Amino acid sequence: MIPIPVDQKILLGALLQTFDLAGTFVFAISGAVAGVRHRLDLFGVLVLSFAAATAGGITRDVLIGATPPAAIQDWRYLAASIAAGLITFRWFAAVNRLKHPVLVFDAAGLGLFAVAGAGKALAYHLGPVAAALLGMLTGIGGGLVRDVLVSDVPAVLRADVYAVAALAASTVVVAGDRLHLPAAPTAVAGALLCFALRTIAIRRGWNFPVANP
Amino acid sequence: MIPIPVDQKILLGALLQTFDLAGTFVFAISGAVAGVRHRLDLFGVLVLSFAAATAGGITRDVLIGATPPAAIQDWRYLAASIAAGLITFRWFAAVNRLKHPVLVFDAAGLGLFAVAGAGKALAYHLGPVAAALLGMLTGIGGGLVRDVLVSDVPAVLRADVYAVAALAASTVVVAGDRLHLPAAPTAVAGALLCFALRTIAIRRGWNFPVANP
Amino acid sequence: MIPIPVDQKILLGALLQTFDLAGTFVFAISGAVAGVRHRLDLFGVLVLSFAAATAGGITRDVLIGATPPAAIQDWRYLAASIAAGLITFRWFAAVNRLKHPVLVFDAAGLGLFAVAGAGKALAYHLGPVAAALLGMLTGIGGGLVRDVLVSDVPAVLRADVYAVAALAASTVVVAGDRLHLPAAPTAVAGALLCFALRTIAIRRGWNFPVANP
Repeated sequence: MIPIPVDQKILLGALLQTFDLAGTFVFAISGAVAGVRHRLDLFGVLVLSFAAATAGGITRDVLIGATPPAAIQDWRYLAASIAAGLITFRWFAAVNRLKHPVLVFDAAGLGLFAVAGAGKALAYHLGPVAAALLGMLTGIGGGLVRDVLVSDVPAVLRADVYAVAALAASTVVVAGDRLHLPAAPTAVAGALLCFALRTIAIRRGWNFPVANP
Repeated sequence: MIPIPVDQKILLGALLQTFDLAGTFVFAISGAVAGVRHRLDLFGVLVLSFAAATAGGITRDVLIGATPPAAIQDWRYLAASIAAGLITFRWFAAVNRLKHPVLVFDAAGLGLFAVAGAGKALAYHLGPVAAALLGMLTGIGGGLVRDVLVSDVPAVLRADVYAVAALAASTVVVAGDRLHLPAAPTAVAGALLCFALRTIAIRRGWNFPVANP
Repeated sequence: MIPIPVDQKILLGALLQTFDLAGTFVFAISGAVAGVRHRLDLFGVLVLSFAAATAGGITRDVLIGATPPAAIQDWRYLAASIAAGLITFRWFAAVNRLKHPVLVFDAAGLGLFAVAGAGKALAYHLGPVAAALLGMLTGIGGGLVRDVLVSDVPAVLRADVYAVAALAASTVVVAGDRLHLPAAPTAVAGALLCFALRTIAIRRGWNFPVANP
């Protein structure tokens, strides 16, 4: 990485932090929706919200040795998850009607998490392949855990261009780092690419091929 | 934490250790019962016993960076799990008939694990919110993993006042630490509170509300 | 451990590394087969290949504090997983017809992973019980995660003498270390024992008893 001037570094940190908390809120909504659909009680819904919102980041932090994970140490992740869970629980019909907006927020969260995950892995001196993988994992981990907990095959493994969009975002961050591009615009570009890929894939029904078993 | 006189510290450590092993035994029984019901063979039952008994503590230890986890380093956790698994396997009808006693033991184990988990997190200098969360996770983690492994939606997410009882216990420990109360009585009070909440909830059918999907 | 002459140490390291990558390839095939059967798309199949191939080793590395895990830092694990996934996806009918060969490879992979896992745990100064457990976990972890992700009760918990064969292999490695036997032949013996146990168990339909629920 080229040395980033201190002001920019603070700006970048604040940017990634904001992205991370926004992504947490959005993913927590997806966890709460799954919980209500599986008829969990209020507290079960809150636990699933927190799990969906933070499992990706917690796994990343454990894998790079950054323990205790940020999502556990910083109360704002818990607060964002609980707020999203309570709102979804209270106004479920309204949130559920927002299906399209939720997919849009989810696509935004996916990109933000993938970018933040890859950035943190690079900051912990992981290699480019590892950082791209960990960015993808940060993005998809929450959805994986959410679906496993309610005994579904993870949508992440099936959905239109989901994990690939996360991998694209984290790859942009890693490539930008390698090419010494400034970090903040690269991060924004990666998140936008993921968002665009995913929303276009949903709209057009883009899918990867399925083999004939 | 206020400095605890050495004698009391040893006493507290021994108390928590005893609680931890007793909880391990009880949770291992719940894992073995689930394994027999899903027609796992003897060895599968033992693996599930160990997973149910130790997953919560192992996850806590990984998250606070206390690797290798106590449940893996200390052979007594394995021994307690295997003993519980063998007894359940051999005398399944009898253990199964004990359904009510098992729930009672489980409620006891939940409180003991939540208290021990919160105490260990505080000892590793985690903040109060994180320590309360990790105490709850230590209590409910084993049941989560048990149910996920046999492809059920975790009872922990549905059952009457389960995760909340664990959270109450860990919150008592954290609050006691903040208020500089002596640690051993606080630990006992937390475990008793969890036990009381959970057994009363079972008896009275207390439940949190469920949203209408 | 007795001090191993440098040349032998390099030889042993290379041996275990080869074993590890071969096991990765074989387990990735089992993940890809499960993914195709559950009609995941191409990318989902690749994610499941990687998860099945590396979850055991990643869990072991996290538990012994060897972060970031080798399977994430070393691109060859990813490359082996992707190669296995692509081959399975493209020629699924042929791979599926190989059912017996796949079981044979899987038995080989199980032994190799169990031996490599126990060896690494000993190198990180874990005790004998913990090292044997971690060797078993390295062997069976990938299959556990694979089956949980596609919402099946893990075959590992049910299959004929599966986890036991892995435990036998890791126990041989630990016993050899205790008895100061040379490490490379012990490793080979452990892997062969696991392979023999598992293939004979499949052929003869050996099973552990099941309790009557």
